[in-house]
Amino acid sequence: MTAFPIFKPLVFAALASLSAALPALGQDGAIAGETAIPEVPIAVKYILDSFIMVLGGILVMWMAAGFAMLESGLVRSKNVSMQLLKNVAMYGLVSIVYYLIGYKMMYPGDQWLVPGLLGGFGIAVLEPVGLAASEADLSYATVSSDFFFQVMFCATAASIVSGTVAERIRLSPFLVFVFILTGLIYPIQAAWHWGGGFLSSAWGFSDFAGSTTVHSVGGWAALAGALVLGARNGKYNPDGTVNAIPGSNMPLATLGMFILWMGWFGFNGASQLAIGSVGDIADVGRVMANTNAAAAGGAITALILTMLVYGKTDLTFVLNGALAGLVSITAEPLYPGLGTASLIGAVGGVIVVFTVPLLDRLRIDDVVGAIPVHLFAGIWGTIVVVLTNPDATIGAQIGGIAIVGLFTFSVSAAIWFALKLTMGLRPSADDEALGLDKAEIGVEAYPEF
Amino acid sequence: MTAFPIFKPLVFAALASLSAALPALGQDGAIAGETAIPEVPIAVKYILDSFIMVLGGILVMWMAAGFAMLESGLVRSKNVSMQLLKNVAMYGLVSIVYYLIGYKMMYPGDQWLVPGLLGGFGIAVLEPVGLAASEADLSYATVSSDFFFQVMFCATAASIVSGTVAERIRLSPFLVFVFILTGLIYPIQAAWHWGGGFLSSAWGFSDFAGSTTVHSVGGWAALAGALVLGARNGKYNPDGTVNAIPGSNMPLATLGMFILWMGWFGFNGASQLAIGSVGDIADVGRVMANTNAAAAGGAITALILTMLVYGKTDLTFVLNGALAGLVSITAEPLYPGLGTASLIGAVGGVIVVFTVPLLDRLRIDDVVGAIPVHLFAGIWGTIVVVLTNPDATIGAQIGGIAIVGLFTFSVSAAIWFALKLTMGLRPSADDEALGLDKAEIGVEAYPEF
Amino acid sequence: MTAFPIFKPLVFAALASLSAALPALGQDGAIAGETAIPEVPIAVKYILDSFIMVLGGILVMWMAAGFAMLESGLVRSKNVSMQLLKNVAMYGLVSIVYYLIGYKMMYPGDQWLVPGLLGGFGIAVLEPVGLAASEADLSYATVSSDFFFQVMFCATAASIVSGTVAERIRLSPFLVFVFILTGLIYPIQAAWHWGGGFLSSAWGFSDFAGSTTVHSVGGWAALAGALVLGARNGKYNPDGTVNAIPGSNMPLATLGMFILWMGWFGFNGASQLAIGSVGDIADVGRVMANTNAAAAGGAITALILTMLVYGKTDLTFVLNGALAGLVSITAEPLYPGLGTASLIGAVGGVIVVFTVPLLDRLRIDDVVGAIPVHLFAGIWGTIVVVLTNPDATIGAQIGGIAIVGLFTFSVSAAIWFALKLTMGLRPSADDEALGLDKAEIGVEAYPEF
Repeated sequence: MTAFPIFKPLVFAALASLSAALPALGQDGAIAGETAIPEVPIAVKYILDSFIMVLGGILVMWMAAGFAMLESGLVRSKNVSMQLLKNVAMYGLVSIVYYLIGYKMMYPGDQWLVPGLLGGFGIAVLEPVGLAASEADLSYATVSSDFFFQVMFCATAASIVSGTVAERIRLSPFLVFVFILTGLIYPIQAAWHWGGGFLSSAWGFSDFAGSTTVHSVGGWAALAGALVLGARNGKYNPDGTVNAIPGSNMPLATLGMFILWMGWFGFNGASQLAIGSVGDIADVGRVMANTNAAAAGGAITALILTMLVYGKTDLTFVLNGALAGLVSITAEPLYPGLGTASLIGAVGGVIVVFTVPLLDRLRIDDVVGAIPVHLFAGIWGTIVVVLTNPDATIGAQIGGIAIVGLFTFSVSAAIWFALKLTMGLRPSADDEALGLDKAEIGVEAYPEF
Repeated sequence: MTAFPIFKPLVFAALASLSAALPALGQDGAIAGETAIPEVPIAVKYILDSFIMVLGGILVMWMAAGFAMLESGLVRSKNVSMQLLKNVAMYGLVSIVYYLIGYKMMYPGDQWLVPGLLGGFGIAVLEPVGLAASEADLSYATVSSDFFFQVMFCATAASIVSGTVAERIRLSPFLVFVFILTGLIYPIQAAWHWGGGFLSSAWGFSDFAGSTTVHSVGGWAALAGALVLGARNGKYNPDGTVNAIPGSNMPLATLGMFILWMGWFGFNGASQLAIGSVGDIADVGRVMANTNAAAAGGAITALILTMLVYGKTDLTFVLNGALAGLVSITAEPLYPGLGTASLIGAVGGVIVVFTVPLLDRLRIDDVVGAIPVHLFAGIWGTIVVVLTNPDATIGAQIGGIAIVGLFTFSVSAAIWFALKLTMGLRPSADDEALGLDKAEIGVEAYPEF
Repeated sequence: MTAFPIFKPLVFAALASLSAALPALGQDGAIAGETAIPEVPIAVKYILDSFIMVLGGILVMWMAAGFAMLESGLVRSKNVSMQLLKNVAMYGLVSIVYYLIGYKMMYPGDQWLVPGLLGGFGIAVLEPVGLAASEADLSYATVSSDFFFQVMFCATAASIVSGTVAERIRLSPFLVFVFILTGLIYPIQAAWHWGGGFLSSAWGFSDFAGSTTVHSVGGWAALAGALVLGARNGKYNPDGTVNAIPGSNMPLATLGMFILWMGWFGFNGASQLAIGSVGDIADVGRVMANTNAAAAGGAITALILTMLVYGKTDLTFVLNGALAGLVSITAEPLYPGLGTASLIGAVGGVIVVFTVPLLDRLRIDDVVGAIPVHLFAGIWGTIVVVLTNPDATIGAQIGGIAIVGLFTFSVSAAIWFALKLTMGLRPSADDEALGLDKAEIGVEAYPEF
């Protein structure tokens, strides 16, 4: 270099200009400041963050199949086609209602009808075709990936209801309820938390992927439905004894549980809403591992407890134990360690084993056990957040659970009542005895068996 | 800076050199020109574009399981093992035939036998192990990811046929037809469009993910098979009345539909063939959301129509309605808005409800309804492209549908006839009555029931 | 430029400084040296490499559902709930045991109890929440993604055992064996190979995704179990003849096979452990395409052979043929070409067709055919590596197969014996005749059929 003395300052200047330019490349000024690691170009971060939501949406959509299989395996064969139809129709209905009403009601941006309390009306609009980088707001993922991810969450809340009210509700009133639940009830309360409403902004309510916002909401709506609808004929005897009504197809129910377990990796993992930074991908890995550990804790606990309590293991309790473990970890799958995650899930398993019979004593007929799994475990999961997440407060958690529960349960009960008085909810006793497949569908699930 | 007057020009020069170098980093000169957004490094774009095709391939492979479940749920239990075997054997056969013949026939590059009209013969060759970046052509994704994605599309076309001709065709002639369909018929016509042949280059035919190139091709081949093969014994009475032959397992059929719905996110979404730019990931999100909205439109429309037309809802129509919605949006899942996508899918649902009975009146026995779903809805989806895609012309669309249909139907019919005359297509009347599981497989699907 | 003579050297210097800076951006000095291609920023490579393992983990977890469906479809209906319960309980148990013991035993790092031979004890610890790029070791993926991927492999090894010993083992001794297999046996031997032990470091044993390390280990443990446990009552007659015991649900078994085929793309594809470079993504594509080609080869070969040998095709052989093809390619899915991959898989199909009856002649009762599929095909796949992978030696391969087999079989046999002597393995003859669902679970799989 001595031959060209001018070069030294030149190269220095060039390197200075380069490093000066680099932070502009980074998506995180703080990191750029403290490390020499070449940053993730912001366009790459934008792509990766959008992609994880697309992938998450596919996995959560798959949960709709899981609920359909779980429920049709746990009902009697005479009502299987109806249960399948309800799940398909419900998922289809939500997929339309959510872009017509739900999405803008849940994410009103600056167009709240009542700021922080009631979102607005409007139809979801995606990016233009062939979006140019210069026109994109790279600070968050694409609207289309966000919509695709969120519509699946709305569908999940609805799926929870169909299992509880199975075998004794007609198709049309059920779909009308689903319309209101997913077009108004779910998005209105979800806006409080995920839409920037008072629960997050003012109260500091913490619910990572929706133990309360999704699962307990489905559970409250299901509980209201079970109460208004009443039990299946023949489930409870006048003398207070309970007739067990076994499900018709255990492999189907087990397949449904496995599908839900798999889909939950999208439900929780993609709720990080980003993988475009070192911190985000590490967090997503934590969430995945914790979600699996919690489900395992719930399943094993239910297995051991049913052995101890009933002398025999009960497959359906183990399936619901795993699901309760998943619901329990959903409010905070990031902060716990693996062991803590399993313990949080294990309590979910305990809840299932002891509250399923409790509901029967209360003569609340929950066909698939959705209320213990999604409501009770959802409440537990939301409260236990305070033990691991430093930002969570018990007040905010209980307050969030209460306000969401109060709103969802009361409105749902009112809707169920209104439907009962107007179009009616139940088939005739004869139709219920005959089975809804023959009565309403005209397609039997297993015509040759 | 005044202390070092030389620095100002130096820094300016350095920054100039940096921005001058940036376009070289960019995958899109246009964008690089109009924005300061740091581009996606081309190696990253290459990786992401290849990855989405690998992921898409996995999802479309999963559709093979969907067809297997859908079809085995819609046939009678005495033919279920055969239907399962056909699907597994067919998928395995295509996976081999496509790399031996299909891929090069579909993508002849500059080795056309007849330029733009007839591809060439050759075996698919993937990248060498441990490809160095310097040896890679980064202008498109990897050959292996492209092959992996495309072989699944070929398998899909074949899967469509097996459902229509179910319960009355022997295994060997069916597999021989599949061999010819996937080794020659499918790739020859696919080359016209996706291989750079006359349909795309000269005619400007537009079919995003294959409503015509994949689905109608399967549908035409199925229609030819149904005509040559004739109906199942006992399906149509001499007096013109039709005997409904219900499927044996509705949960299985519904599972199959859900698997197909999920797999379609790979089928349509990954057909963007790229996520490595801001515009591509935004488009992929649009495609995913529209695909879901269209399937929902088809399902809900079939649900409502069957209620109105038959007084009762029919689960199998709703399942096929969702699938018809998916086929309808496949030709153009990018340009429509969400509402338009649902309407396009809804028409698919209408098509299913009215053409399934039409085929019965014509005494064309389509066991699973694949012809309405894949052929009729595929034609509709290809035509409606002109309403949303500014580059599509009605002439090119109808011309493409016609030429592909004419070719596929006539060649398929010829093959079916030749097989009928040589090895024969149908089992004996006794074997058909006995069921193909006992007659040909020796494994019953549900031996204990 | 003449107006500013100083600019020429400036721009040159700036470009020089830029290209001098570029290699620092690169994850591969060699490539950076030989090409002008802009490198993948190391943070992006870190994210992508971690992501493929997360995705792979989700797909391999899905295989647990595949085994559950395959096995419950191949057992008699009276033992289906038990088989489902075993699979769910096993998967849950492994998910906990692996982070408590397995992971550190398999990846002791520098904390071997016996260097290269016996890993250490310890609980898996994931990254801290919100990992900063500056704190991350970007030379490999995240610990959490690696753990999430590896725990699923451990579960796979256990799943293999449950099918072989089905219909005649009680739940509790089975789960105790699974505990020991996944907490000690599997991780101890896996450490020899993947944990940096003597098999890889000293012997140069080559097993890409685990034909030996995962599949043959499950197979050896299953063989030991089948020998200690004995055959199902009524399977083998005193006169040496064999009573075929058909599975109860073929669609379920076929679904299981398809799930496993799909999941295998994660099992093999993600075992590249990276997609963050041009070479890695190209290799992953090769692995995906080869895995599919091998499974196809196994399925088609089994189809043709059963036609020739038995006169009729047998669905269950075709299903196991596909799985054997997958196991066969698992040791080396990268180096073979597509045709070679199919041939390697085809031999797997041959193995299944000829060794399934062989086991019956030896009166070894393998209910689902897991020993031919996972052990015999696993050995074949590990040996054949030497034909395509230049780094593999026949000595190392056979040595690895032998040492892993000797260790796994002998320890497994000892554990099975100990369990037989202590808690006992089999239900009473009455319970076995009654069916384990009624005897141990109290939940029938198909109560209405």
